[in-house]
Amino acid sequence: MSDNIETIRHSISHVLAQAVKSFHPKVKLGIGPAIEDGFYYDFDNLKITEEDLKKIEDKMREIIKKNIGIKKVLLTKKEAEKRLAGQKYKLELLKSLKDKRITFYEQDDFIDLCKGPHVKSTKDIPIDAFKLTHLAGAYWKGDSKNKMLTRIYGVAFNTKHELDNYLKMKEEAEKRNHIKLGKELEIFMISDLVGKGLPIWLPKGNIIKEEIEKLAKEMEKKAGFIRVTTPHLAKKELYMMSGHLPYYENSMYPSMKMDDGTYYLKAMNCPHHHLIYKNKLRSYRDLPLRIAEYGTVYRNELSGTLAGLLRVRAMSMNDAHIYCRKDQIEEEFTNIIKMIKEYYKLFDLKDYWFRLSRWDPKHKEKYIDEPANWKMSEEILRNVLKKLNVKFIEAEDEAAFYGPKIDIQFKAVSGREETMSTIQLDFAAKKRFDLSYQDSSGGENKDVFVIHRAPLSTHERFIAILIENYAGKFPVWLSPVQVIIMPIADRHLEYSKDIEKKLLDDDVRVEVDSRSESISKKVRDAQVQKIPIMITVGDKELENKTLAKY
Amino acid sequence: MSDNIETIRHSISHVLAQAVKSFHPKVKLGIGPAIEDGFYYDFDNLKITEEDLKKIEDKMREIIKKNIGIKKVLLTKKEAEKRLAGQKYKLELLKSLKDKRITFYEQDDFIDLCKGPHVKSTKDIPIDAFKLTHLAGAYWKGDSKNKMLTRIYGVAFNTKHELDNYLKMKEEAEKRNHIKLGKELEIFMISDLVGKGLPIWLPKGNIIKEEIEKLAKEMEKKAGFIRVTTPHLAKKELYMMSGHLPYYENSMYPSMKMDDGTYYLKAMNCPHHHLIYKNKLRSYRDLPLRIAEYGTVYRNELSGTLAGLLRVRAMSMNDAHIYCRKDQIEEEFTNIIKMIKEYYKLFDLKDYWFRLSRWDPKHKEKYIDEPANWKMSEEILRNVLKKLNVKFIEAEDEAAFYGPKIDIQFKAVSGREETMSTIQLDFAAKKRFDLSYQDSSGGENKDVFVIHRAPLSTHERFIAILIENYAGKFPVWLSPVQVIIMPIADRHLEYSKDIEKKLLDDDVRVEVDSRSESISKKVRDAQVQKIPIMITVGDKELENKTLAKY
Repeated sequence: MSDNIETIRHSISHVLAQAVKSFHPKVKLGIGPAIEDGFYYDFDNLKITEEDLKKIEDKMREIIKKNIGIKKVLLTKKEAEKRLAGQKYKLELLKSLKDKRITFYEQDDFIDLCKGPHVKSTKDIPIDAFKLTHLAGAYWKGDSKNKMLTRIYGVAFNTKHELDNYLKMKEEAEKRNHIKLGKELEIFMISDLVGKGLPIWLPKGNIIKEEIEKLAKEMEKKAGFIRVTTPHLAKKELYMMSGHLPYYENSMYPSMKMDDGTYYLKAMNCPHHHLIYKNKLRSYRDLPLRIAEYGTVYRNELSGTLAGLLRVRAMSMNDAHIYCRKDQIEEEFTNIIKMIKEYYKLFDLKDYWFRLSRWDPKHKEKYIDEPANWKMSEEILRNVLKKLNVKFIEAEDEAAFYGPKIDIQFKAVSGREETMSTIQLDFAAKKRFDLSYQDSSGGENKDVFVIHRAPLSTHERFIAILIENYAGKFPVWLSPVQVIIMPIADRHLEYSKDIEKKLLDDDVRVEVDSRSESISKKVRDAQVQKIPIMITVGDKELENKTLAKY
Repeated sequence: MSDNIETIRHSISHVLAQAVKSFHPKVKLGIGPAIEDGFYYDFDNLKITEEDLKKIEDKMREIIKKNIGIKKVLLTKKEAEKRLAGQKYKLELLKSLKDKRITFYEQDDFIDLCKGPHVKSTKDIPIDAFKLTHLAGAYWKGDSKNKMLTRIYGVAFNTKHELDNYLKMKEEAEKRNHIKLGKELEIFMISDLVGKGLPIWLPKGNIIKEEIEKLAKEMEKKAGFIRVTTPHLAKKELYMMSGHLPYYENSMYPSMKMDDGTYYLKAMNCPHHHLIYKNKLRSYRDLPLRIAEYGTVYRNELSGTLAGLLRVRAMSMNDAHIYCRKDQIEEEFTNIIKMIKEYYKLFDLKDYWFRLSRWDPKHKEKYIDEPANWKMSEEILRNVLKKLNVKFIEAEDEAAFYGPKIDIQFKAVSGREETMSTIQLDFAAKKRFDLSYQDSSGGENKDVFVIHRAPLSTHERFIAILIENYAGKFPVWLSPVQVIIMPIADRHLEYSKDIEKKLLDDDVRVEVDSRSESISKKVRDAQVQKIPIMITVGDKELENKTLAKY
């Protein structure tokens, strides 16, 4: 039986430490665990650069080739202390151990305080399937009050093929990194003066954002959605009614005390939409009522977790709430899923599947306790998925507090799994907000179901994924600059400007590169900007009144 | 010489008090001043309804007809106290007077502590030019800790003609009142749970808002504006740099302390736009750079002052900042004014004029102290207005802190004067934000001028004015529902739906009134909703496949 990859990764970290110690006998060892895709080891008193990694890697292979046995050794605490003399971090770890017998692993002259398990011999480590990747600083025990140690990271797999695939994928992901491309393509910026997690859409990013909004508005108008605009904040009382307060307060922005009460930036759009629903008497004929909004919600994430467009504090989304009768749930869910499939097709997103997220009756504290409603609604959602014949899985204990949902899971180019869209059934809102409609006999019916849906995720997340997915090469309809006209010499500028004007009149997003640069420089720059249509204008084009596509 | 209208109004308030006392001898008098358009008098211990006003008015005319002399009487404080026995509010006022001789005015058996002046005799009051209008509760001395008195309001003019005009104008304004129409036409709602001053755009209002945005985006794209989207908040440091903090802090929403600093809802969009300008090296070729945004700004107004769309706490506006060289200021201002005139024409706004708002060198504490820049820039702005040959006035001490501006003043249907748009020159931003560009020789030039402009005011103010101006009858392009199809009987419904579908496909905003109501009821309701195109469908239309416009 071959060793578990976790075990192999852990053993490589020991080999790494052994190799480092052979060059730098005075290093103090921290810890060296296996992690996702690889391993690391922390060292104190080690001054190296990334150039040194190659040498260490070579030494590691040397050790592996030696076929050294890795032996488990049990010592008393006293013996252990003796063996760890001078290794202050290890001694600190030893102190916290309650065991009578302390486990060590030993290979040649290298011994390490370690619970294991490990491979039997260094030769059990696939010699060509690992790589040291980079250095990083890391506080001892992850605490910024402690000393910063030097961490060496590596990746390791069972086979060279797997390693190569991984490295290729990483390289590709790095090229597609939305933070890097977002900067190069001038899609968004983040300023310390405005705050992390609050991206600013630059003109080019704003065009992408507006094209997406235009598409959504057109598609959803046809699907019977009406649109509203609600303020970005509301009074405490609204969030008490919705139940966001006090339970969700830590995730919300701090409150603002005004002369007429306490205000919060909104954490969700639904409470506002419920008020719009309640603003007039609704008749059974008005249902389903589909209220949509490009709304912005705010989350008080820790600043340390914020990055690019994927971890933000303000999220704008194509949100909607559908108010319907029980007998309309199935059709509404069906139509939303069809719409999502259409959206994904338009954006060339392929690697996705559906997930029916159910409640867990064993965790009643997390869910509204209405077993009959759960049973009924999960059944409806399952039926929808079955009838549509789409790929789906079921996941217990993944529902919202107020009802089951269908999540659309997506595998990003980077390998990351994302929940891209969600359709949630809500049978709690009707009570909290006292929703009702007048039925055909004129009586008041309080059985109003609410469906929450956001098919295009948030602008921030969606555009990050589009950047990655297209590797920055947006299709023409989404490209901030659709056409660039490059005059070869200054004498071709006037004709270029004529063409620009014609295209502008036809609502094409066009630019002329009027710089006095060589055509090859212009082409290179246009390629960096990933402009889909490049046109060169030279003597021939000027004479024949034609255009040449590069 | 005829009496001043203020004096007449004040004398009518005495006649009002005399009349009330004749019916209710035990009332306690508060105060009774002249106010804009009329007068009021406050009474304690008076229980009447608005139905009683006619009787009081008749009694007032009776008193006026009697031609009673109004005599000034000077009393010592002791004598005054005696005359005011039992009138606790008047005694309270008397106490605060420092004069030796106390002025009273006397007419018949009615005497009032009063500084005057008054008309000589009640017959000097134009008998047919006043009217009691309504009752209201009013705290003694305006303090909510005091007792609430009954206030009788009236209007008064020199002639019946003036009174009639005023009442007609009020009636018309009441019909056009944007709060009343906004509710009837379902344009916006205000909820106590969200907060006053934070209007929610209902589906119909949202259509108007989006049509305006669409227009602005189209027009401004042609005029070379690029669009961005910036967060609704920013860190304290940004507003320190812009100078909003600490000077403007009281007008801003309360701060929010997060784990990485203090955040504020934005008071203006400009600081965000300056950061976008600074995000990359700008060349002289990039200027003028016109950055536009439908941005939302927040003001911490007192809740008591908030009403409808005209006094709000969150304002969305078609904002833009133009970064240009000194020699480009004139052309940019000229183009903006031309654009504003085009906008106003499209919205049928006619009663407007321009105001050159200058600084006042005597109030240097209010302005950036750069006399040469003020002189130069005021001259440029004046030249623009002269060359365009538009109606304009000049106003000293009305400039912004950072430079002169051109305000576009508008007279609303209600008679109210509004600043509808503003174009401001800013020569302070370049220093505060260290703005610069690379000139043609490659050197850094820091002489960047910023123009702030918001031609369509805020959405809130602009739509309030449009509602008033159109009296709710929006032109077809702005109408939330453009066409209503009214089948005469149920057998005409199918054909009506066919037509609806055709119109929907052509992007017409159309509805079918499918209720089983009489055609006259349907027409009446459509008229209340002020739908511009009403179509009836009956047997004839069905047979001939035609339509009948109502």
